[in-house]
Amino acid sequence: MPVKLLESREIYSGELALRKDRFVLNGREVEKEILEHRPSVGIVAVSGDSVILVVQYRRAAGRTLLEIPAGKIEDGETPEQAALREMDEEIGCSGDLKPLMQWYLAPGYDTELMHVFVATNLKKIRNRRQMDDDENIVVKKVKLKAAVKKCLNGQIQDCKSVAALLAYYSKPV
Amino acid sequence: MPVKLLESREIYSGELALRKDRFVLNGREVEKEILEHRPSVGIVAVSGDSVILVVQYRRAAGRTLLEIPAGKIEDGETPEQAALREMDEEIGCSGDLKPLMQWYLAPGYDTELMHVFVATNLKKIRNRRQMDDDENIVVKKVKLKAAVKKCLNGQIQDCKSVAALLAYYSKPV
Repeated sequence: MPVKLLESREIYSGELALRKDRFVLNGREVEKEILEHRPSVGIVAVSGDSVILVVQYRRAAGRTLLEIPAGKIEDGETPEQAALREMDEEIGCSGDLKPLMQWYLAPGYDTELMHVFVATNLKKIRNRRQMDDDENIVVKKVKLKAAVKKCLNGQIQDCKSVAALLAYYSKPV
Repeated sequence: MPVKLLESREIYSGELALRKDRFVLNGREVEKEILEHRPSVGIVAVSGDSVILVVQYRRAAGRTLLEIPAGKIEDGETPEQAALREMDEEIGCSGDLKPLMQWYLAPGYDTELMHVFVATNLKKIRNRRQMDDDENIVVKKVKLKAAVKKCLNGQIQDCKSVAALLAYYSKPV
């Protein structure tokens, strides 16, 4: 589709950042507010017939959720480096990574593109990194089949975790 | 987990809205910026052995994406009413709805909770609603098996669409 950007201006910049774009789409002028978010990683961490999940309090949801390990890609990191750092911080493991998928989480208004990896040959890390300030994580090892069941019966209410676990279950890499 | 909210203040309110929460989580004080987004609906619209998808330009992604029909729940609407309105606006159909799933799209910072429905017995609507300003939609009918393949081979890069199509494929309702 023919798109012409007329103006892009910052509205807010803090932990999160907002901008407003004015552009012409198919001959019509449109204004749109956009949340600028770093690209991120998510990891299906496989240990035998199980996967390693995390339980954490999510202020935006107002509750505790069961999810795959995930997080932002920091300055200067490749997606693989970010995935290994997040695994270290959240589940205390390293492993071998293979790309599974990539997707936007909320492309209607959010730039976040998530790279999803499968991690195998997990190894415990002895000297773990400091966790991020707001991370408050309980690690859970769950049989893959049980995790898939939790995706389908509503016990996992995080979209990226449902998508990643069902994709891995359909197509192990 | 014990959580005590100390302060919640508005940072920005436009099309999107941001707030900053200060709270105590497990005895430690945390500040967190949160995108406040209405709850939403997504629809797996089933027609025979096919599903109805939409292609639209997504400014946040900077490209055109293939997705399930979806959108915000407006004031006073139930999730079912919103799903029927979005089907009308985006694919020009009504149908019978059954709930499939609900999930947060980006619970690390975004309040959006999406209710996903399966729609069957689709019927064309003659006098269609006006589309939202920024909607610019091409409707695609795709065999369910081909849509699932697109989820797994990276041709569908929208997380909610991957999760919803794989969930429906695993567990038709």
